[in-house]
Amino acid sequence: MAAQATFKSIKSLVPLFDRVLVQRFKAETKTATGIFLPSSATNHPLNEGTVIATGPGAPNKEGQVVPCAVKAGDKVLLPSWGGNSIKVGEDEYYLFKDGEILAKIQE
Amino acid sequence: MAAQATFKSIKSLVPLFDRVLVQRFKAETKTATGIFLPSSATNHPLNEGTVIATGPGAPNKEGQVVPCAVKAGDKVLLPSWGGNSIKVGEDEYYLFKDGEILAKIQE
Amino acid sequence: MAAQATFKSIKSLVPLFDRVLVQRFKAETKTATGIFLPSSATNHPLNEGTVIATGPGAPNKEGQVVPCAVKAGDKVLLPSWGGNSIKVGEDEYYLFKDGEILAKIQE
Amino acid sequence: MAAQATFKSIKSLVPLFDRVLVQRFKAETKTATGIFLPSSATNHPLNEGTVIATGPGAPNKEGQVVPCAVKAGDKVLLPSWGGNSIKVGEDEYYLFKDGEILAKIQE
Amino acid sequence: MAAQATFKSIKSLVPLFDRVLVQRFKAETKTATGIFLPSSATNHPLNEGTVIATGPGAPNKEGQVVPCAVKAGDKVLLPSWGGNSIKVGEDEYYLFKDGEILAKIQE
Amino acid sequence: MAAQATFKSIKSLVPLFDRVLVQRFKAETKTATGIFLPSSATNHPLNEGTVIATGPGAPNKEGQVVPCAVKAGDKVLLPSWGGNSIKVGEDEYYLFKDGEILAKIQE
Amino acid sequence: MAAQATFKSIKSLVPLFDRVLVQRFKAETKTATGIFLPSSATNHPLNEGTVIATGPGAPNKEGQVVPCAVKAGDKVLLPSWGGNSIKVGEDEYYLFKDGEILAKIQE
Repeated sequence: MAAQATFKSIKSLVPLFDRVLVQRFKAETKTATGIFLPSSATNHPLNEGTVIATGPGAPNKEGQVVPCAVKAGDKVLLPSWGGNSIKVGEDEYYLFKDGEILAKIQE
Repeated sequence: MAAQATFKSIKSLVPLFDRVLVQRFKAETKTATGIFLPSSATNHPLNEGTVIATGPGAPNKEGQVVPCAVKAGDKVLLPSWGGNSIKVGEDEYYLFKDGEILAKIQE
Repeated sequence: MAAQATFKSIKSLVPLFDRVLVQRFKAETKTATGIFLPSSATNHPLNEGTVIATGPGAPNKEGQVVPCAVKAGDKVLLPSWGGNSIKVGEDEYYLFKDGEILAKIQE
Repeated sequence: MAAQATFKSIKSLVPLFDRVLVQRFKAETKTATGIFLPSSATNHPLNEGTVIATGPGAPNKEGQVVPCAVKAGDKVLLPSWGGNSIKVGEDEYYLFKDGEILAKIQE
Repeated sequence: MAAQATFKSIKSLVPLFDRVLVQRFKAETKTATGIFLPSSATNHPLNEGTVIATGPGAPNKEGQVVPCAVKAGDKVLLPSWGGNSIKVGEDEYYLFKDGEILAKIQE
Repeated sequence: MAAQATFKSIKSLVPLFDRVLVQRFKAETKTATGIFLPSSATNHPLNEGTVIATGPGAPNKEGQVVPCAVKAGDKVLLPSWGGNSIKVGEDEYYLFKDGEILAKIQE
Repeated sequence: MAAQATFKSIKSLVPLFDRVLVQRFKAETKTATGIFLPSSATNHPLNEGTVIATGPGAPNKEGQVVPCAVKAGDKVLLPSWGGNSIKVGEDEYYLFKDGEILAKIQE
């Protein structure tokens, strides 16, 4: 279970290095017409999310800071494993390293 | 089981770095004349697929981006393990790193 | 359980290299009006803390010392695992490497 | 068990990077005079094979592509472990990295 | 259990490379007024010690010897794990690598 | 158990890179006067052998090939573990990497 | 149990690269007056030894050979683990890498 944050807004969180703060999409637990879905239909994790903020990038072997490949607002595909989670109010967020993010989602 | 995507078309997915998006070939579950094959004849995984999209490449130690060795449309041989899977509609896709792809299939 | 320090003040501790000395936030065990909370409400670890001191930084591959990305007084988000703990009086402190700290908290 | 290929000829397979496509020698299951050997005499794996094709080579740390040390037609000694297998028709093939191949066999 | 040394004085030990010889602080087993403490009060390991001697430093990737960050006489905070132990007479000593030492203690 | 080679002479084997082909010394199973020794006296592995052939050497990080430190005819001390074995006729041979060989034996 | 050497004198062994040949000190099994000590008093391994011979050193990343930090005749402190053992007659010897040796003993 993710640790509960003491701060009120996720905007307080400023990632360091090449870390990317992501809000995972939530599985719908009821349909558009308000019918609650059984848990069997909603228990697949969603590996997609929206980038909330990124760090400035990590230095490469030459000592130069390499900016992150994604930016705030990007929709991204996440790996099924890894990441650090933090819960702010009722929302759960994840921090991944830039290189762990699999793809951008451009609709 | 692969996570179900919220987006409708695999074309929405833009791989990052040296990642390669691949659609695995599907094992035929019925013959050309429409007879369904028993599962014992179809349960061997197919380690072949078609490249749907590739990332721009990953930077090497010198900081230069090395383009992927495969390109969209290539038919490729995949390792039996690894990769990240994502399900879009009824189709399952995989993301591999460029260096994990074993060979091109040129018929 | 963290080892008990023989020294009286955490100010005696001067981190080496890229290590960062952090005091984790404590979970409140009673409410503002003085009612003690049941342990079930307080047993989630808090992954936040305040930087007490940092080392001068670790040398990179070129031999140049890279200063820490955080400084004394910064509020930070910590990973759920890792770190070395030390107990000074009743307070528990942690030493993390600079690169393990996930994000700054700026309220 | 090796995955069955959908393509008909092993010549369709073009290894990438420093990968080497090898056909293992088959243990004889009957003698020259046509007597079938008991399985106990044939169940030792043969760690020898013939190189069918090689990739162009992998880039070294300087970014230069290093050609493979073996070439198509070479007979080689393989390690007992590792490699990726693929079955084309009734024949099983292996992909090894160039550096995993132990020796050439020159008779 | 630490191996017993054959030599009589710890001063005989000259660390190599970036190794640091440390004498751990001992837990008091009786109070100032001479009352013996129960073992439950003394069985927490003390992760502090005094540097007895250091090696000249280890060479970095450029081949240059990097001196240790601590020196003889320094009081230091040690990690809870690791190190090599040696017992000289009744006293137990530890050898850590310079980079494993967490912090200096300056009172 | 080592794989049986299909070739007749160990001279057919040409090691690649920094691999060294070694024939382990055999434990005597009978005394000089022809008395067979019990297996308890002969079951200690002999970690010595004679170098039969070496590869040209492996490239270092600069791309330069570093010749092997041993040569054909050298008697060497081998580690207790590791190596790839191959059986040619009744004789068992091993392939080690040059850097795994512990010492030369010069009598 | 260490493998028994076929050669008669440890002087036949010439270490390669950065390996150091060490003879561990033996625990006394009887006192100076000839009384045999019970095994409980002698079963602590002695992690000290005398350097018998060293290799020429291993090449660093620049390709330059770095001589060993110890030399024949040095008394040294060994780690409790690791090393390769070889028994010559009744004496057991160890080969360690130079960087694994903890300290010199100078009495």
